[in-house]
Amino acid sequence: MALSTQPYKGARDFYPEDKRIQKYMFGVLRNVAESYGYSEYDAPILESFEIFAAKTGQEIVDEQTYVFEDRGGRKVVVRPEMTPTVSRMVAAKRQELAYPLRWYSIPNLWRYERPQRGRLREHWQLNVDIFGVDNLQAEIELLSIIDDMFKAFGAKPNMYDIRINSRKLINYILGEYLSLSEKESHDICKLIDKIHKISRSKFISGVDAVLSSKHKENQVNEKLLSILDAKSITDLPADIASHSAATELKQVLDALENKGINNATFDITIMRGFDYYTGIVFEAVDKHPDNNRSMLGGGRYDGLVGLFGVASVPTVGFGWGDVTLENFLKLHHLIPDLKNETNLYACLIGDIAEKADSAISEFRKFGINVAVDYSGKKLGDQIKNANKNGVGHVLIIGDDELQSKKYKIKNLATGKETSGSVKDLVKVVNASN
Amino acid sequence: MALSTQPYKGARDFYPEDKRIQKYMFGVLRNVAESYGYSEYDAPILESFEIFAAKTGQEIVDEQTYVFEDRGGRKVVVRPEMTPTVSRMVAAKRQELAYPLRWYSIPNLWRYERPQRGRLREHWQLNVDIFGVDNLQAEIELLSIIDDMFKAFGAKPNMYDIRINSRKLINYILGEYLSLSEKESHDICKLIDKIHKISRSKFISGVDAVLSSKHKENQVNEKLLSILDAKSITDLPADIASHSAATELKQVLDALENKGINNATFDITIMRGFDYYTGIVFEAVDKHPDNNRSMLGGGRYDGLVGLFGVASVPTVGFGWGDVTLENFLKLHHLIPDLKNETNLYACLIGDIAEKADSAISEFRKFGINVAVDYSGKKLGDQIKNANKNGVGHVLIIGDDELQSKKYKIKNLATGKETSGSVKDLVKVVNASN
Repeated sequence: MALSTQPYKGARDFYPEDKRIQKYMFGVLRNVAESYGYSEYDAPILESFEIFAAKTGQEIVDEQTYVFEDRGGRKVVVRPEMTPTVSRMVAAKRQELAYPLRWYSIPNLWRYERPQRGRLREHWQLNVDIFGVDNLQAEIELLSIIDDMFKAFGAKPNMYDIRINSRKLINYILGEYLSLSEKESHDICKLIDKIHKISRSKFISGVDAVLSSKHKENQVNEKLLSILDAKSITDLPADIASHSAATELKQVLDALENKGINNATFDITIMRGFDYYTGIVFEAVDKHPDNNRSMLGGGRYDGLVGLFGVASVPTVGFGWGDVTLENFLKLHHLIPDLKNETNLYACLIGDIAEKADSAISEFRKFGINVAVDYSGKKLGDQIKNANKNGVGHVLIIGDDELQSKKYKIKNLATGKETSGSVKDLVKVVNASN
Repeated sequence: MALSTQPYKGARDFYPEDKRIQKYMFGVLRNVAESYGYSEYDAPILESFEIFAAKTGQEIVDEQTYVFEDRGGRKVVVRPEMTPTVSRMVAAKRQELAYPLRWYSIPNLWRYERPQRGRLREHWQLNVDIFGVDNLQAEIELLSIIDDMFKAFGAKPNMYDIRINSRKLINYILGEYLSLSEKESHDICKLIDKIHKISRSKFISGVDAVLSSKHKENQVNEKLLSILDAKSITDLPADIASHSAATELKQVLDALENKGINNATFDITIMRGFDYYTGIVFEAVDKHPDNNRSMLGGGRYDGLVGLFGVASVPTVGFGWGDVTLENFLKLHHLIPDLKNETNLYACLIGDIAEKADSAISEFRKFGINVAVDYSGKKLGDQIKNANKNGVGHVLIIGDDELQSKKYKIKNLATGKETSGSVKDLVKVVNASN
């Protein structure tokens, strides 16, 4: 029986036209990250299970992670996210590294999920992290980078917005202000994380199921719902609005506004799934009506490096997946016309592959990418093939051309033909790129 | 208990200084591959077990492959090599693709092995394949690409050589010329594959163990050993030297010599481990005495695409791992001085992060990568940190500088200071890169 040509379920093959888009996207992301002084790192896609068990979050590890035992009996994970790995790497060289440490990576990540739009079993995810800054400049810088990345793709502020919240503020509201127990707070957080995916009534009954009758007497449910309806910090009850975590949020939002970033807002429902966040958390949301969803997220996680037996390091980071980014760019028509890397398709007249080699090499020395047709087919068929390959120009070489050292190229889009030396033709090809 | 900071056994973390080397290497490989008209593709690191079971080779699949069952009961492999995957992808679009099809990829591959020098459990491997060319131009092109890649790294011909053999020729020698059975031929091939790793006497007793007494009477053992001692095609018995497979080998070697590639030789002991090769096979060997080993290998495998239920496609390809390449470059001192991507380290005098932002953004708009120190430490300490970060220049900004719009930069290598506008300083930074 023939083998299946399908890739593994929920995962993608990248044919050259797909890979070209990915390379374009990653190129833009890399440029912006590096413009802020971030350096690229990488790590193995297989990691020990333990580092994810610690803080990634129960649901992800128990239900969605690829875990297996290797031939030596070690419990191994195909990494579902990069944050535990980068924390491990920083911890390993805690003393040698210089802070602020600015790192980025574009790892491949895997989760065992039911594949659906914008959520496959694997994706590539830009991770940008700043280590060693305990003040809000870290958050402000990362949010500026995100905004610069959107702009570098040509996105307009009405295409996306940035939503900001604070785990510290939520912890204060649930723990101190509403006097919920730790267990109740945790369950309410999980509910809030789903608030935009379930109906209002389902959310309310979820809250009712979590809160004890004592709370109900004190109208905690109503208070909570009214707090969650706040659209700005000033909408919140005075005790909350004046808490230091709220002041921090305001400071970040003001700084962004001063930089001309006007599409950033406070959103008390932003939770982020991971258990390791300790301060400000944020998301960016695609505002296209067909794809109104979170595209990226991050926040402050000051405690993770410290789990590896060294002094902890204040850290802020975010992750941005290639699937949500590509959906965004496609919906907003922001993917430019990406040309085939091959500039020239050499058609050979007769069995002259070896004789033609030095002329073809000359084009390559001038930086022109040349593919050669060795089929020995009729010229018309070779040109058809060049067209099918998506190459811009054909180069025609026969014995006469090799003798005279004058060659002919044809622009396949315009039909225009030019004859000349290698140098002359290099100019024509370069001019059309 | 604290979590371990070690990466998974036999796998590598890439700190920025390591990643910089990898990016340099992959950049050179990409440039040369694209100059020959190859386009990059990619595919998931997890694949179905079946496509490797078919042809990768018993030992690799049974003993060295990461295989596990996913939560849906599918048998999944962390791919040990890319060739079955690329064959699958070509088969999936057999009719739509234009031939010759030139593809390359740099996938991450995993094998469960005892880690040793030049052989880890994971590596990244350049794969270059040409599909749809049934004549020797395909082999000649790939060998030219390999040679061009070495040259692009600055390697001299005495640092490496290229060794070529033919599976067709070996099959003729063992099957027809020496009249071995299929089983005997297979076992002898596996022995030849190890010939340089075991002693001569161990090899001879291995041959004796495989060959039946009938062969021994006919002095097949002696004949085989004398054939394996051949250093060139003309050393071989006339019947073998005149076989079409030998003529092919001579044609490839002659074509390379005509291109000025003089370090390619016939080597009858080159086998390549995979079962799918059908014609010419080749390796490149590091000639450094401390690392005299095969660095890359490939050959013709005309049958693999056809296993996926479509008409087969003649194919030649090779793979080149990053570990062997990096060892080669390091031993021969071919890794250039790779600079930190960050050009400028901004030291702030006082709490002026937000006020300084627009000046810093201006540098970025001119293409300068700027990291900012938010620590509020003394200037001297910030400069020390810049040094530790490996950045070339520091930029000093205080209230006076923001007022006058004249800033000061200092070249940390030479100590030279320059004052001026953003534009003036951009020139100085660019000139030193």
